[in-house]
Amino acid sequence: MQEIYLDNAATMPILKEVLAEITETYQADYANPSSLHSKGYEVEKKMTKSREHLAKILGVSASEIFFTSGGTESNNLAILGIARANRQKGNHLLTTAIEHPSVLEAVRHLEKEGFVIEILPVDPAGRVDIEELLSKIRPETILVSVMAVNNETGVMQDIEAIAQRVKAVRCDIIFHSDCVQAFGKVRMPMLKNVDSISLGAHKIGGPKGIGLFYLKKGIKIEALLFGGKHQSGLRPGTENYPAVRAFELAAELAIAGQQQHFIKAEQIRQLFLNELSVQGVDYRLNAPLELSSPFIINIGLPDIRAEVLLHALETEGIYISTGSACQSKKNRISHVIEAIRAEYPEGSIRLSLGYQTSEAEVRQTAVLMAEKIKQLRRFVRK
Amino acid sequence: MQEIYLDNAATMPILKEVLAEITETYQADYANPSSLHSKGYEVEKKMTKSREHLAKILGVSASEIFFTSGGTESNNLAILGIARANRQKGNHLLTTAIEHPSVLEAVRHLEKEGFVIEILPVDPAGRVDIEELLSKIRPETILVSVMAVNNETGVMQDIEAIAQRVKAVRCDIIFHSDCVQAFGKVRMPMLKNVDSISLGAHKIGGPKGIGLFYLKKGIKIEALLFGGKHQSGLRPGTENYPAVRAFELAAELAIAGQQQHFIKAEQIRQLFLNELSVQGVDYRLNAPLELSSPFIINIGLPDIRAEVLLHALETEGIYISTGSACQSKKNRISHVIEAIRAEYPEGSIRLSLGYQTSEAEVRQTAVLMAEKIKQLRRFVRK
Repeated sequence: MQEIYLDNAATMPILKEVLAEITETYQADYANPSSLHSKGYEVEKKMTKSREHLAKILGVSASEIFFTSGGTESNNLAILGIARANRQKGNHLLTTAIEHPSVLEAVRHLEKEGFVIEILPVDPAGRVDIEELLSKIRPETILVSVMAVNNETGVMQDIEAIAQRVKAVRCDIIFHSDCVQAFGKVRMPMLKNVDSISLGAHKIGGPKGIGLFYLKKGIKIEALLFGGKHQSGLRPGTENYPAVRAFELAAELAIAGQQQHFIKAEQIRQLFLNELSVQGVDYRLNAPLELSSPFIINIGLPDIRAEVLLHALETEGIYISTGSACQSKKNRISHVIEAIRAEYPEGSIRLSLGYQTSEAEVRQTAVLMAEKIKQLRRFVRK
Repeated sequence: MQEIYLDNAATMPILKEVLAEITETYQADYANPSSLHSKGYEVEKKMTKSREHLAKILGVSASEIFFTSGGTESNNLAILGIARANRQKGNHLLTTAIEHPSVLEAVRHLEKEGFVIEILPVDPAGRVDIEELLSKIRPETILVSVMAVNNETGVMQDIEAIAQRVKAVRCDIIFHSDCVQAFGKVRMPMLKNVDSISLGAHKIGGPKGIGLFYLKKGIKIEALLFGGKHQSGLRPGTENYPAVRAFELAAELAIAGQQQHFIKAEQIRQLFLNELSVQGVDYRLNAPLELSSPFIINIGLPDIRAEVLLHALETEGIYISTGSACQSKKNRISHVIEAIRAEYPEGSIRLSLGYQTSEAEVRQTAVLMAEKIKQLRRFVRK
């Protein structure tokens, strides 16, 4: 059975070129970059090159780039690290109801440390109301965190505009953006008014276990981990150069192919939705197309339990999701689907495209999905 | 030039079998173990198998095993996580002067959070005096942390005896042991009285970026990272199954070959030291052989600057270290060498053996080292 993998927002298969590179690097550059001998120094130099390359891709300085174990750690470092280090300036934090759990739970944890948190609702499209956000800023506000692309619905926020407006209220408010689902998929926000961002390699065909944290020079932060003086002391632990190199290559490929990937994803998304209509499937978009990443399609289906459809499709070798992998096992409506007040929360599914996803794959998915939906509805209505 | 790599305590080259396995796993088992579909579930099942296998190797339950990004994160999770979660029981922490920076700096950070820390000195062998340690226990003591094998000198502590004596004073004191340099090298302490340990994969021929944290059931702990419900919520973030599987295999191979590796390392260490004597090199052992891991040889050389010798040897393709890679760039005497009051702190070097290190390699190293030392001394004495 041909496998059709449509859960690339949970994790994208590692790219062939990236796999070849990490395999080579494991062997050639195994030394510890912190070792004093030339073998370590060679790896340190290569590590610096990777850091510089990623910095260049993001339009920032190499000294502003830190490697972490992934998007979750990067978001935690941003939220916990910035809040704790800037506490003397204030204790108020602002974020949105549709953030990734690694932002939301970090923020909620800070409540226990005496911070006051405010979680903004979103409109039915999943968008933050900028005016409302601005109205919540207090003299004690130190940090605002808004994600660039939502991992469940794909909805995009205008990060540049939000960051600029926040900074216009008070330039010393720190602005973080979780860009894990944006990088290599949609246009990244300019980082002019954005003080920190999070990226993860395995969402763009890189390996798991490696993430990036960008922090603008001059922003105060407290480390989450303590130890050796690696990475300016902000993130100790033996540097994982093979993974860093693989991340660099995945990023390079993602950026080089971005325009082509984006156009292809848009076409595939449209083709899928057209095919669903042709097949007579009734669905609601859980985010407006023009406001969403084309790599994420989240739709609500009436009279369908998403999980049942998911399992019906997997018997055909088609893999979709009901939302974030981080939450899916909880077996209840996700906080994002709740926040957008989706019309069919129980019947909301997510298909997420990879660079390799083909038109034939989504066409077949639409046809089989229509079939399964008919079967399931018959069953429901008996 | 044939390369002789003797810095395996900093990082060991990835084993061929492990590399083949991780490469295969990257491709076959790329799905996110938290995904709801069967492809994710298959990886989750495999992840559980790896966890169970590692638990069995350690003689503990699978539910007591957590995967982290490495030894540094595991040690931080132990120190910060246990101290913060048990603060209502007391605020006093006890550790030793020769711990890894990821323990020492975590403990020092806790001082800023209001904990009282006590760092025990060691004797010139690098050993903790158990009676002295016990005498420092107060009613407020909640955590004692003693490493099993020191990463710089290789000195071993009798962790079982220390843990047992600590528990005899008060059974609710939590005992942590950094076992990063012990696992797969020397006999691991029984975990009966040990509540938590840290391991890292890349010290035994596994990949970088993956570590293990064992926490005895029932011990209270606070997470360092917040997010999804992965790993019982203690350590969120997409699970890095390829690295976990590679770690499992490296551990399996390390344990299967342990006796043989240990005997071989003892022989190689003795051969190296004999050869040094034959070559007329004057040296002091920085840890008694009978109390040390045979994988780590730390010696002090009179009238030699360790760093200069290290660079002289690297021109011959021989890679040694002056101490911990985590600290070596700081270019000063390490805290461990200071703590043991080494006779020749400036001239202290570390050779650390891997499973692949051969007799021929260390013999050649001894010969070339003797040569370089003569040249350098001539230079010094001019």
